[in-house]
Amino acid sequence: MRLTPLSDIPEITPGTDLAGLLSERAAAAGAGPGDILVIAHKVVSKAEGQIVTLADVVPSPAAEELARETGKDPRLCQVILGESRRVVRRRGATLICETHHGFVCANAAVDVSNVPDGAVVLLPRDPDRSARHIQSRVAQTAGGRVGVVVADTHGRAFRRGIVNVAIGVAGFRAVVDHRGRRDREGRVMVATEQALADELAAAAGILMDKAGGLPAILIQGVETEWAPGTAADLLRDPVHDLFRNEEEHTS
Amino acid sequence: MRLTPLSDIPEITPGTDLAGLLSERAAAAGAGPGDILVIAHKVVSKAEGQIVTLADVVPSPAAEELARETGKDPRLCQVILGESRRVVRRRGATLICETHHGFVCANAAVDVSNVPDGAVVLLPRDPDRSARHIQSRVAQTAGGRVGVVVADTHGRAFRRGIVNVAIGVAGFRAVVDHRGRRDREGRVMVATEQALADELAAAAGILMDKAGGLPAILIQGVETEWAPGTAADLLRDPVHDLFRNEEEHTS
Repeated sequence: MRLTPLSDIPEITPGTDLAGLLSERAAAAGAGPGDILVIAHKVVSKAEGQIVTLADVVPSPAAEELARETGKDPRLCQVILGESRRVVRRRGATLICETHHGFVCANAAVDVSNVPDGAVVLLPRDPDRSARHIQSRVAQTAGGRVGVVVADTHGRAFRRGIVNVAIGVAGFRAVVDHRGRRDREGRVMVATEQALADELAAAAGILMDKAGGLPAILIQGVETEWAPGTAADLLRDPVHDLFRNEEEHTS
Repeated sequence: MRLTPLSDIPEITPGTDLAGLLSERAAAAGAGPGDILVIAHKVVSKAEGQIVTLADVVPSPAAEELARETGKDPRLCQVILGESRRVVRRRGATLICETHHGFVCANAAVDVSNVPDGAVVLLPRDPDRSARHIQSRVAQTAGGRVGVVVADTHGRAFRRGIVNVAIGVAGFRAVVDHRGRRDREGRVMVATEQALADELAAAAGILMDKAGGLPAILIQGVETEWAPGTAADLLRDPVHDLFRNEEEHTS
């Protein structure tokens, strides 16, 4: 298995033909059938114009209150609430939100780094669709099926540090179901669903420059199972989640 | 960055010279200075004799009660409670425990797959020490500094599927601190601690055969920072954890 950062990705702005750019760069890096391309969501979001200028935001009373409680800019709080289905946890300046997509992450993934002052970047509206769009273009230059992961860095419960996870998936099954297969001793395995798309995102994260320089990583030599693909497969139904259903604050 | 499974790892039993075996196999795979070896904890645990035969276990009244509540074998419950500092969440047959090391995971990581019937495998007593022991042997044959990660597959809050995480680390800094560095726009980055050892474990997990066949993966071409290394760097202090401090059941 080999991971190669795509080189010469320029600063992405709204309207950049990102899919075309990535398909060229992936071809230059030797992308072929079966390969996976992992892309930091920020370039996808920027290309799709998912940028908000805080000066244009009028905070609601709820955002004003959240700003007082967290010490954040009220306009940023307005944007975060707009991206959130609910606030899952809050302590001090820390806000863990469930986005409209269903991702649970800090500040509803609203991000202030690597953007011009006074602007914030949101997640893509439909990261699976973004992934599919890029996938179809990259597949053309790669000459066959490829997989695409749109990734974001998330914190985790219980563990320090951020890791990349998949928020958009196209072209392969995001979760591999090993249940029913047998282990070396011949025992049927239970409860073994492998979050393959998250593992691929995390692997790519090792090479993604945190200053924003290397946002796309080509992964070669991984077996995947063809599927349309969706990051929704990675979301635990809140009903089955042991860590979401207490102390909830509806935004 | 390249990942290569070490080949010809036989079934590991208590007393196997695992460090010697891995250092040979890593050398055969071309391991050199700066490389990282990720090892599934199960082979480490087996080599260290961290195996319990359930027939030898006498369940306590607390284990009997937990068995009634969860439908698990009372002797398995006894082993799980013995490995746990506390039970963090419980629902149906699902038990999320904090181990004596501080890891939060299902069943305190007590594992019944890939072991002979009637036996269960525990985590290594001190996975950092296990990692250091393997590291010193692998470094000798590799001719310079190497890193070692002992990994286990964990479920996550909010997300489906398991991923490999680091439970033992030697030879490099497990968490990379990017705080204070500047992004492309020249803004100082905040809150960016990268869980590098977990990313490496997740990457290796892609190639680890879930039936137990490929327990050691060599990773080459990753920049790491020299440090003695410890997985404790990856543990969030429970005081700062937003998802642990409610509904706790002391075992």
